Amino acid sequence: MKVSIQGNRGSYHDIVARSMFGSETEALERDSFEEVFQDVVGKQAEFGVVAIENSIAGSLDGNYDLLLENEVFIVAERYLRISHQLLVLPGVDLKDVVEVFSHHMAIKQCRVFLNEHPNWAINEYPDTAGAAAFIKREGKLRAAAIASRLAAEVYGMKIAAEDIESNKRNYTRFLIISRQPNYPPDANKTSMALALKHQPGSLARILNILFEHQINMTKIESRPIVGVEWEYHFYIDFEGGVQEPKVQSALAEIKNHSHWLKILGSYAIKPVIE
Amino acid sequence: MKVSIQGNRGSYHDIVARSMFGSETEALERDSFEEVFQDVVGKQAEFGVVAIENSIAGSLDGNYDLLLENEVFIVAERYLRISHQLLVLPGVDLKDVVEVFSHHMAIKQCRVFLNEHPNWAINEYPDTAGAAAFIKREGKLRAAAIASRLAAEVYGMKIAAEDIESNKRNYTRFLIISRQPNYPPDANKTSMALALKHQPGSLARILNILFEHQINMTKIESRPIVGVEWEYHFYIDFEGGVQEPKVQSALAEIKNHSHWLKILGSYAIKPVIE
Repeated sequence: MKVSIQGNRGSYHDIVARSMFGSETEALERDSFEEVFQDVVGKQAEFGVVAIENSIAGSLDGNYDLLLENEVFIVAERYLRISHQLLVLPGVDLKDVVEVFSHHMAIKQCRVFLNEHPNWAINEYPDTAGAAAFIKREGKLRAAAIASRLAAEVYGMKIAAEDIESNKRNYTRFLIISRQPNYPPDANKTSMALALKHQPGSLARILNILFEHQINMTKIESRPIVGVEWEYHFYIDFEGGVQEPKVQSALAEIKNHSHWLKILGSYAIKPVIE
Repeated sequence: MKVSIQGNRGSYHDIVARSMFGSETEALERDSFEEVFQDVVGKQAEFGVVAIENSIAGSLDGNYDLLLENEVFIVAERYLRISHQLLVLPGVDLKDVVEVFSHHMAIKQCRVFLNEHPNWAINEYPDTAGAAAFIKREGKLRAAAIASRLAAEVYGMKIAAEDIESNKRNYTRFLIISRQPNYPPDANKTSMALALKHQPGSLARILNILFEHQINMTKIESRPIVGVEWEYHFYIDFEGGVQEPKVQSALAEIKNHSHWLKILGSYAIKPVIE
């Protein structure tokens, strides 16, 4: 089975793909989230894995927009604790390192560690695992990559410094997308997008409907469209699966009060991947 | 007067700083948003300029967190239309270019243009204007930077291709921060952060208070804290200045129903910088 991921083998997206579908999965390595969505829509892949929010950096709103623009649905979510390692070629020591390659976000998240090595040149690279693959391919004996433990395994590299992320409460939420909504019977969380007229109280009315149905909201985000008439999209996650009568009743009412509504997916809450 | 900006002279942050404070302003060029906040708190600068959301990429939630962690306040906001240029050294032509340097976000935002030049090597650089300065400093005759028109002026470079951003509805909202809230008398927008207990209806109650006071919300975002008990922060912007009686009355009620509340700033809505 083919799964499309953003980044290279050994990336955090790959960790999530393997945890969902097993390590035998064929991962299609893509440079951009757009390509992952295209793979799923165009049937090159059964599933796609895309990051949607990080506990430090916030939401990747562009990916919410891709969920709206494409005929795809969320079939699962996974939280992964992000733990960065400093990878070097076998035989290389920490004191040999003069330059570091990684994704700009990983570089930011290891700032405290990097500040202890002020002489290192820091180079941004489009992907964490891709940076490890680059060092391996080029045989760079004075370079290190910031990447995952899985990347060390995949590219046969050595971990010169462990768990170098500054903030240990670094979690990323990933969505697994597919062409069919495929609601599992144990679904207990639902994601929706809706548009409301820009008038006072329109969102309060939606939240009151959830409250009256005793449905707990777990996330809300507004997305204004700048430059045209101010209209608003909202992305809302709540506890409860679409198969539950109270959820069906709430959604029917919400639909009546919205300009449009799309159920992005309904799926089961799972433990964090440590 | 000193203003701290993220990025180099000629960056989009610098455009906003000059539009607010004039081109004679001394800009302190910083690598990170943390340093900009430190400059303001530590009195190295009177004001700081920080991006807070982009119409394509979404919010920079890390900067909201910095607003909470530091004793600073929003004193103004500006929307800037982001228009990217391809900069080369004088005398260099488009056909000479073999590699491009820019901030990862600018690279993503020019994907359509860059796809027309598939042989170019694309290099991420921490700042758009910084990439232009780098090409100038190194005298690179085969390289181009993606940066602003101002960067072309500042570094004496030539625009080899104009307005190369894929999406023309590319706006970034910037906040101007200072140590004092300094509410202007024409303030007609307010930003607040608040924490609510994770119980059904708690946010609906807050929005109902705004609605009952005929106050229009312009932005809302939730920030869950993963890993501990689920507690929520919300960032809410609404129309109305803190000097207005209806706003004061609404804020008093909201405070009664919140775990804590911080007024991040109250300021006047201004036209987009084109």
